[in-house]
Amino acid sequence: MPGTATAPSLPTDDQLALIDRYWRAANYLAVGQIYLLDNPLLEEPLAPEHVKPRLLGHWGTTPGLNFVYAHCNRAIRERDLDAIFLAGPGHGGPAVVANTYLEGTYSETYPHIGQNGEGLRRLFRQFSFPGGIPSHAAPETPGSINEGGELGYSLMHATGAVFDDPDLVAFCTIGDGEAETGPLATSWHAPAFLDPVRDGAVLPILHLNGYKIANPTVLARLPREQLRSLIRGWGWEPFEVEVTDSDDRMPAHRAFAEVLDAVLDRIAEIQTAARNGTAAKGEPPLWPMIVLRSPKGWTGPKVVDGQQVEGTFRAHQVPLSEVRTNPEHLAQLETWMRSYRTEELFDADGVLLPELAALAPEGERRMGANPVTNGGLLLKALELPDFRDYAVRVDAPGSGQTSATTVLGDWLRDVMHLNPTRFRLFGPDETASNRLQAVFGATDRAWQEPILDTDDHLAPDGRVMEVLSEHLLQGWLEGYLLTGRHGMLTTYEAFAHIIDSMVNQHAKWLHDINRIPWRRDIASLNYLISSHVWRQDHNGSSHQDPGFIDHVVNKKAELARVYLPPDANCLLSVADHALRSRQYINVIVAGKQPQLDYLTMDEAVAHCTRGLGIWSWASSTDGEPDVVLAAAGEIPTMETLAAADLLRQHLPDLQVRVVNVVDLMRLQSPDEHPHGLDDTEFDAVFTSDKPVVFAFHGYPTLVHRLTYKRANHGQFHVHGYIEEGTTTTPFDMVMMNRLDRFSLAMDVIDRVPALGSSQAALRQRFADARIAARAYTREHGEDDPAIANWTWPRS
Amino acid sequence: MPGTATAPSLPTDDQLALIDRYWRAANYLAVGQIYLLDNPLLEEPLAPEHVKPRLLGHWGTTPGLNFVYAHCNRAIRERDLDAIFLAGPGHGGPAVVANTYLEGTYSETYPHIGQNGEGLRRLFRQFSFPGGIPSHAAPETPGSINEGGELGYSLMHATGAVFDDPDLVAFCTIGDGEAETGPLATSWHAPAFLDPVRDGAVLPILHLNGYKIANPTVLARLPREQLRSLIRGWGWEPFEVEVTDSDDRMPAHRAFAEVLDAVLDRIAEIQTAARNGTAAKGEPPLWPMIVLRSPKGWTGPKVVDGQQVEGTFRAHQVPLSEVRTNPEHLAQLETWMRSYRTEELFDADGVLLPELAALAPEGERRMGANPVTNGGLLLKALELPDFRDYAVRVDAPGSGQTSATTVLGDWLRDVMHLNPTRFRLFGPDETASNRLQAVFGATDRAWQEPILDTDDHLAPDGRVMEVLSEHLLQGWLEGYLLTGRHGMLTTYEAFAHIIDSMVNQHAKWLHDINRIPWRRDIASLNYLISSHVWRQDHNGSSHQDPGFIDHVVNKKAELARVYLPPDANCLLSVADHALRSRQYINVIVAGKQPQLDYLTMDEAVAHCTRGLGIWSWASSTDGEPDVVLAAAGEIPTMETLAAADLLRQHLPDLQVRVVNVVDLMRLQSPDEHPHGLDDTEFDAVFTSDKPVVFAFHGYPTLVHRLTYKRANHGQFHVHGYIEEGTTTTPFDMVMMNRLDRFSLAMDVIDRVPALGSSQAALRQRFADARIAARAYTREHGEDDPAIANWTWPRS
Repeated sequence: MPGTATAPSLPTDDQLALIDRYWRAANYLAVGQIYLLDNPLLEEPLAPEHVKPRLLGHWGTTPGLNFVYAHCNRAIRERDLDAIFLAGPGHGGPAVVANTYLEGTYSETYPHIGQNGEGLRRLFRQFSFPGGIPSHAAPETPGSINEGGELGYSLMHATGAVFDDPDLVAFCTIGDGEAETGPLATSWHAPAFLDPVRDGAVLPILHLNGYKIANPTVLARLPREQLRSLIRGWGWEPFEVEVTDSDDRMPAHRAFAEVLDAVLDRIAEIQTAARNGTAAKGEPPLWPMIVLRSPKGWTGPKVVDGQQVEGTFRAHQVPLSEVRTNPEHLAQLETWMRSYRTEELFDADGVLLPELAALAPEGERRMGANPVTNGGLLLKALELPDFRDYAVRVDAPGSGQTSATTVLGDWLRDVMHLNPTRFRLFGPDETASNRLQAVFGATDRAWQEPILDTDDHLAPDGRVMEVLSEHLLQGWLEGYLLTGRHGMLTTYEAFAHIIDSMVNQHAKWLHDINRIPWRRDIASLNYLISSHVWRQDHNGSSHQDPGFIDHVVNKKAELARVYLPPDANCLLSVADHALRSRQYINVIVAGKQPQLDYLTMDEAVAHCTRGLGIWSWASSTDGEPDVVLAAAGEIPTMETLAAADLLRQHLPDLQVRVVNVVDLMRLQSPDEHPHGLDDTEFDAVFTSDKPVVFAFHGYPTLVHRLTYKRANHGQFHVHGYIEEGTTTTPFDMVMMNRLDRFSLAMDVIDRVPALGSSQAALRQRFADARIAARAYTREHGEDDPAIANWTWPRS
Repeated sequence: MPGTATAPSLPTDDQLALIDRYWRAANYLAVGQIYLLDNPLLEEPLAPEHVKPRLLGHWGTTPGLNFVYAHCNRAIRERDLDAIFLAGPGHGGPAVVANTYLEGTYSETYPHIGQNGEGLRRLFRQFSFPGGIPSHAAPETPGSINEGGELGYSLMHATGAVFDDPDLVAFCTIGDGEAETGPLATSWHAPAFLDPVRDGAVLPILHLNGYKIANPTVLARLPREQLRSLIRGWGWEPFEVEVTDSDDRMPAHRAFAEVLDAVLDRIAEIQTAARNGTAAKGEPPLWPMIVLRSPKGWTGPKVVDGQQVEGTFRAHQVPLSEVRTNPEHLAQLETWMRSYRTEELFDADGVLLPELAALAPEGERRMGANPVTNGGLLLKALELPDFRDYAVRVDAPGSGQTSATTVLGDWLRDVMHLNPTRFRLFGPDETASNRLQAVFGATDRAWQEPILDTDDHLAPDGRVMEVLSEHLLQGWLEGYLLTGRHGMLTTYEAFAHIIDSMVNQHAKWLHDINRIPWRRDIASLNYLISSHVWRQDHNGSSHQDPGFIDHVVNKKAELARVYLPPDANCLLSVADHALRSRQYINVIVAGKQPQLDYLTMDEAVAHCTRGLGIWSWASSTDGEPDVVLAAAGEIPTMETLAAADLLRQHLPDLQVRVVNVVDLMRLQSPDEHPHGLDDTEFDAVFTSDKPVVFAFHGYPTLVHRLTYKRANHGQFHVHGYIEEGTTTTPFDMVMMNRLDRFSLAMDVIDRVPALGSSQAALRQRFADARIAARAYTREHGEDDPAIANWTWPRS
């Protein structure tokens, strides 16, 4: 807790002068990374061949980030803080790399980048260079949990990182461009969810440098009093620092150091009061935050080619862009770099001077070395209750009904009970609506604002996170996972698309963890899609879209996992697997409405382990079939079984094989996905030449793209969601998309040659049944009970 | 303009009593829609068979929406306002349907729902009923431009709707649940972009009813002063109305009427001052807004089964859920419905009493009948300059280079010039970075905050919309299109995923327009993806993702169009087509970096019209080839041509056909997409039996899913993005994904049988060339000029 150390002393002028030198060193390293191939200490006059041919970097945000980082270091040392740093502004890589280099973590992580002249040369050369490192605070960057490529997620990552880690402080620098994004705009509501007792502290540092790529920023141009009003409205107390003269830096250092001390004192007070029980109940504290106004590209060239650069949008990327070809630019770069006076920063060997090196914290207190930022280091497996103990009893397949998520809720309750500090459940106001309300037997919903009698299961220390923002939930969960914990996010299938882009960015991070030796595996990102497309008949068209799994399947095969458990026991088996796994994105689609149970727990475990299989009990043959009826997803499974039942009644001689797919990636070739069935096994299940009528949960094309290499692919006839839907009944929804039992049975008739003379009549009979079913719903407003209550006949 | 009519008088008690009755009528109609199949006027005692079997509706938000709508009606009449209503809260359908029914527009739109008892019966029955209407303010709902299914877009839709429509007022009711979403949170910055001179006014009405599905809302629980501070910080002046006693409604009516008068007066003052030039420059006005606190489910059952319902989350959906089976619930429903005293609202025939009907505005002043909300009614074709006049001169294919978007910028400048009030360009701070800066010759970036000397092309009346929020841009553009105007959104390809879900919802709206006879076609939603995956080598992995086109292709074939123009002239042709089109989602992928020009304008028009074609000049045969090299996308096209060049040099006898695809949907079968080539034509281009090495802009699986039905699909070998990338050079990016010329040429060698004894050696030669190219980039930090500057050889 920031206040537990002895009260820090105000920094002396000498101390601030040292910090200024440290800052200059970081700025120098940043410029060097952007520009230099060689001559890192400017031991000789700068020549064109020392300069990179492509200048790829973003100077504008860098000096501000360096400034904040240097001051955070002082605070960490003074207070022995357990702290991390998030660089929200885009392309903040040069700053974070420079600082982790100065503090020593960079060379420890990458020994070939030593702390000497040759190390500097390599440090500079590798930046945004082929075979080198990216321009963001990427996974390659020690201490980073926020990339800063796609903007807007820093504050939610910081918030997720401090959940259940009461001693942690997350210094979160937020760019004023980033602050215009929707995700960041709603992140400011964190104080309504952050518990000063069980959680750590987030310190947002809103960095107003005034410009984006080509435009001013909205927040920087607001009248001052309006911005303060906005910040207080968000629930934070603003502390302001403004750089009024870019050349006179000491006042800025003093102001920032004093403000940082003040806000950390305030954080300590808030936490102490909350933890010793003297804080006011039901009123979230007004957490402090910092507003830093500094010129964009501070300390860089003031004017280039007659145009003002420092303090304008022209400082956004590379202030001098023609250094190799324009001698004036080259000279200006040299003057700029020499303005940092390397002789006061590094010795002749390129080693940081000892009085500056001493400014960094030590060991794991260094923000680049905090193990929290390499979450896999701290990750412990969850204590998981045996999911078999929660099994639904199944006396005969397809005879009884269960709400799968209700059963899962019982298990999750005990997961939450057994793991009070490293598992959280996230959902947009839908935990109970998704039938997971059993979890409230173990914990409550997190809520810091006042609690009324009319509220349900709210508590300041709750671990179920509910807010009507999929962005916020996803970002919190990412922050929680990246710092070594576990979680699950439940959401409407259609609205999972709201976070498509966040999934991409997290997938990229996981991809990189797999390739960076020192990054350790973290817990998987688990989605439970319970309000899925086929049970949104009541909510209408806007709630109907199964494309999230298409999106996830586009990710690297090593990361993407999609499970479509057909019943409650399968869901338990799959969920257990997901919570034990690492480094995956697991999407589990399972409904909350009562559905038929098919498999005993032993059968379910075997089925889910295989990932797909022939259901002999539902097939009319154990031998070579005339047709395969395949299904993936709970509703397609039911419709497929009902179709098999119809075919058995009306075409008793037809040899039907019923196949069920739980693990969608089994359909792919093994050279494309590690779960892929080899062709022999695949053909053994789906045959190499018989028609396959496949009832699929999502868009039919997804099955085609997964199976297009299979021998029998030309005979795959896939039924799925074809963008039809409205507010209607469940069975009308499947009829609208021709996924209903009658359409499946008709397709079998169309595909299997020579079914005999009854073929046309039977086809008409099924077509009539569709018409009758629709007429029933139109008249009664609900499905024909004979259809809705269909069960698999006991033999 | 709201202030142009004579100053309105304060409402008398009698007038307010009439409004209360009107409101009760709307509430009654809402309850009837949720519950009743029959007995709409309760002429007989309520019986179970009068009640719907499935109760699907959301009562909680409805009375508040009805309350606001009724008062807006009064203001419209008093001031002769040109106004529309947006229902932001989820599932607000019953309210908007009830009000448009009361004002008469519903029956005019749907004559079978008459204004009498039988009409009421049908009105009630159809709601959330099979064959009926959805529970949201859907496209089926007159007067709606915001669906309210996926929450968070109401305020951005309202803002987009008033752009360039100075007389329009958008009454935008915002739910306190919706307000937690990221998109809505950043929408509050609208005043920084709304011009009081050229744009209309948005009046947000933040409806705090305190609860979501199961949780309180963040904004409703904030301390009052904190919420006011937040609102002022966003740039609005809060006017508050609170219902303190749910049974004593007249004070609430009086308070709301007075506040509504006050805010409309204030809006008129702001607009008058701005329009007559007396307003302060460079300071956005503090626009007024309303905060309405009313109990959730106001006027509904107070207690059900011993639990408080009115004013709690239990009022969210259906307060009485067992009406058919629980006599107590049935009785309570009847009491509730009779509490509205229908005898004071409707005559014996079910016709609204004339003194109430007189409260609604008339004709197009009715918010359900405002033509703005059926934008196609007002849509006029753009004045488009002849794109041929902007053609790049091409003397020989592949010999010169042009930045395609720079050329497009010239044309767009003149589009903006010719259409000063019905075309806007939207982009996240990237118009200039995307090389479209020529448009600033016609207009500026919209900006209401102070403008400094260091700014570039900002103006209060600018029509280029830039803000660092893809959500905001998309939402504004949707609002602009839905009200009958035109636009284009440019964005990074990777970050288009940020708005995946918004694209879904807009696609659903377009889908419905196509099926609702009275809804008229609107202008297409046009995307220009210029910072695409293959030119994000400098920005790194986070900026690299081509999956947006996969997402769009999942939409209905009637809506989705994807264009990959290979050069500047093709881009002009495609863009002209897009801006003329209606009801599509056009995604145009075209780079901003200089690229080779291949086609003269005449050739480009012919090529784009066909959508794909054989490029004879690049092929080594006009007859039957040994292999087809196909490409879609500018970078794949260049690599394919370079591969063809390599093959020609090294395998002069190999018969190579080069095919280029501009219109991606041509690949699909005509039974799946209206643009689909028939199989004969397809086979004529791609052959029915020769290997096709296909270089594709996006994920390879997309080509497979589009072509899996084609005869020759088994021979399609697609190269594309396989999730590999980092900060490196452009050519290293294509090498990492095996889309480079050498990999394509090697694939040809692998696929074409019997190339002779030189095969292995040549393959090795290409493999070595890859290694050398990579080594070059690692050493020099840029691509080998021989590769980077490759041009198609003049024959």
